[in-house]
This record gives sequence, C-alpha cells and structure tokens, in this order.
Amino acid sequence: MDVRELIGQDRFAKLLGIELLEVSNGRATSKMEIRDEHLNGVDIAQGGVIFTLADFTLAAAANSHGRVAVVINASISFIKAFQKGILLAEAIETSRSEKIATYTVNITNLDGELIAEYHGTAYRKKEVF
Amino acid sequence: MDVRELIGQDRFAKLLGIELLEVSNGRATSKMEIRDEHLNGVDIAQGGVIFTLADFTLAAAANSHGRVAVVINASISFIKAFQKGILLAEAIETSRSEKIATYTVNITNLDGELIAEYHGTAYRKKEVF
Amino acid sequence: MDVRELIGQDRFAKLLGIELLEVSNGRATSKMEIRDEHLNGVDIAQGGVIFTLADFTLAAAANSHGRVAVVINASISFIKAFQKGILLAEAIETSRSEKIATYTVNITNLDGELIAEYHGTAYRKKEVF
Amino acid sequence: MDVRELIGQDRFAKLLGIELLEVSNGRATSKMEIRDEHLNGVDIAQGGVIFTLADFTLAAAANSHGRVAVVINASISFIKAFQKGILLAEAIETSRSEKIATYTVNITNLDGELIAEYHGTAYRKKEVF
Repeated sequence: MDVRELIGQDRFAKLLGIELLEVSNGRATSKMEIRDEHLNGVDIAQGGVIFTLADFTLAAAANSHGRVAVVINASISFIKAFQKGILLAEAIETSRSEKIATYTVNITNLDGELIAEYHGTAYRKKEVF
Repeated sequence: MDVRELIGQDRFAKLLGIELLEVSNGRATSKMEIRDEHLNGVDIAQGGVIFTLADFTLAAAANSHGRVAVVINASISFIKAFQKGILLAEAIETSRSEKIATYTVNITNLDGELIAEYHGTAYRKKEVF
Repeated sequence: MDVRELIGQDRFAKLLGIELLEVSNGRATSKMEIRDEHLNGVDIAQGGVIFTLADFTLAAAANSHGRVAVVINASISFIKAFQKGILLAEAIETSRSEKIATYTVNITNLDGELIAEYHGTAYRKKEVF
Repeated sequence: MDVRELIGQDRFAKLLGIELLEVSNGRATSKMEIRDEHLNGVDIAQGGVIFTLADFTLAAAANSHGRVAVVINASISFIKAFQKGILLAEAIETSRSEKIATYTVNITNLDGELIAEYHGTAYRKKEVF
C-alpha cells in the first residue's frame, strides 16, 4: 500500500475536509477550509480542528517511510485565533531513529502567519503497510 | 450567560456528538461515542477526535468561573488505542492564578482504562461572559 | 543491581543535593533544598533545577520495575515561583505498556502548594540492570 | 539593566558552566561543556542539565526585548543520548504577542546532530528591567 492510500482511509480527516497536498520522505503538507461547523463557543476554530489538521499531516510524514508510525505524544501551542478560511499545515521530521521519530507541524493562514505550532513524537512499529 | 450556554455554542463539539455531563467550579465531565466516521487510516480513533473531546471538557472546566479562558498550550499522551464505543472525559483544575490556570483531562473507556491523558494551560482573559 | 543503586549513581542529582525518599512499584518521592546557587537572574529557583528534581524522581519510579527506562519526552508547567527552602517531588505512574510508560510528577513546597507539574513519557528498553 | 546583565545573574547556569554566546532581538545561543558531574545513573547527560541549557538560552532570547518574561510551560524531546563534551543551544522566537511568546531551542553537538528539542511558552510581564 502507498502512504497516500493509507492516509486516504482517515475517515475523520475526510469528515473535516482535510486535503493532503504533498508527502515525501518525512515531510508533508495539507490544507483545510475552516467553516462555521468547525467553530467553538467563542466563534474561533476549535482547538481540536487545528490539532486534527496537524496530526493528520504528521501522520502522512511519519508513514512516508513505509512503516506504520503512531503518535504517542504531542504538544500544541495556539498562537493566533483563527475564524474562517483556509489553513495550511506543513510537517517536518526533526529526528528519526529506529523506534522513535519527532515532527514539527506549523499551521499557517494564507498570509503565512503562524496560527499554531505542533510538536509530535511517533513510535515506529515493525510492520510495513 | 451561563457556562453551559457558552459551551453549548461549540459547533465542532456538536458535529462530533460530544455531550457535556457535568460542570462546576473548575471541573467538568463529558462523553462521546466513537463511530466509524471518527477513525483514522489504521482503524482507530483519530488523535484529533480524542484531543477535541479533551479540549472541550477543559474549556467547560476553565470557563466555569465565569471569565473567558482560552487554551494557549496543551500536551497529550495517547496511551491505548481505541476503536468504537463510548469515551468519557474528566477535567480537573490543577492550579489557577489571576492569569493562568492548568488542567488535567483523563480520557477513559467504560472499563475505566486510561485511553489518553491531556494537560492544558489556559489564559484567563479579563472579560466575563 | 537495585534501583536505588542505579539512581544513586546520578552525579548531577548528587551535585544538586537531591535525596531519594521512597521508591517502589512505579512510584517515587524525593526532596531537595533550594539554595542561593540554584536561583536564576530574577531570584527564583531556575526552571532547570525544578525539572531536574522531577526528572530524577520519574527516573526512580520508571526504573523501579527492574528494566532500564529512559525519558523520551517531557512537559512541565511552572505554576508558582519558588525562592529558597525545601521542595518535594512525587512521581506517579499513570500508564505502562511493554514499551512505553507515562508519569506525572508533582513538585510541592512544604505547605503542599503546587510549584510545578511535570508529565513525562519513558521508553522501556529490553535490558535489565 | 542589559539582558546580558540580567541573565548573568543566573547562579544555576553559572554553577553548570553555561556560557551565553549571543543574544539579540528574540534569539540567543549558548554553550556548555558536559562533564562527569553532569551525568545520570546510566552515564549520559542528565535530562535536567540539557533542560537547563535550553531554558537558560530561551530566557536570554525572551528577555532580549527589555521586558521580564518567564517560562510558564515547556516541553522537551530527548533525541540522542550524549556523554561528554560541548553542547550548543540556539533559541529562536517563533511567535510573540503582547502577553505570550513561544520559542524553539535546538540542542546540538559539535557535529550539528540534534540532541534535544525544546519548546517553551513565556509570559511577558509588564515590568521592564
């Protein structure tokens, strides 16, 4: 199976309308349109929506090496409130050993402003897909 | 406005079917049913779904004091994979000063097993709601 | 080798004067006296001192099962500034699987007030000690 | 007071032999020699030593704007074990608003390999120094 196929089976990402743009060798980019149904009680994008976009993009990057990788820990900083429109996510692998790999995902608006910063640690299983 | 009313306006939580059970003085509990549309590419609950449940529950707890509080930073550990069924979330305030408050949210299954552990820092605005 | 012996070889903890009080089955407590040499530029305990106390206590708890465990990721919230005197640390195992275990460490003063809250993820190696 | 003067009063950094190399407009670099007294029970640099180096470098960067900034939350990933020798730290400001700023600190060896990755959130007080 190809990483795009694996990632394409993510039903929650599909529900949110997240689109994978690029994925290769430890990197990935994706985008999503924040709509009314993604807002929280104070009318900004719910933290979980932004986390999902970041997590999905990391998953693409982490699985790009052909082995199943799952996030065991992640931290996210919410930098700037975001209402509606397009968000972009870019995942970069900052380290990778046999078992553990780390990723930074920057979430930006179309003006390139940082909306959130996500750092995740993935555990690399032995199984290939 | 009441905290239940504020939290009830969270459209993303509504989209996911998250239900607030209790909220009072820095604590809150909620629940959600994980269904097929919430799964990721390897058939377990997407990290973003679990994060959303935790984040929503924290938001209820953090806003229970009547002042607007927003999460600035959160870290989450994914302990045990979860497929389908009911997840419970319990948020507890571990500290609160004038500007900053911290929360732990435990996500468990109906057997009381820990599925994920979330720790968030909220910034308390001056505005009341 | 005993976990106390392994932990007793921590030269940095010794340099700081950290004392292990108790350790057993995934839990540990320790204490330390914050002195002038542990303060930062604004006259409060340096974040690194508090982190070290937490990290050491986690290491005791994580290695108490007889297998080498190393921290791969940790997050810490600094709740309340602390000047001089005794700090206590208590590490509790919140989950443990074959490879990964998670810990919460609370750092308190002698009045029981929370000074810092630390959450760490350890990777459990195959080797025993 | 100058930021170098403020940072120079950090007694714990002095105890560890941390040296500030550069500091300006949200960025800072520093270095430290890991010696025997900085090792833990399994003969690698104690996590607290590396955290301290990162935290100190962040403090320099965060205070470079002339207002007192304190770390409220930090997460650190330990990527590669390090024994003895020189470690370098580079802090970069990834965002800054009126109250909150975020920093990434990379800790590397002299070969440029990533040893640890630190992400911190600082609260910016009103007071200047």
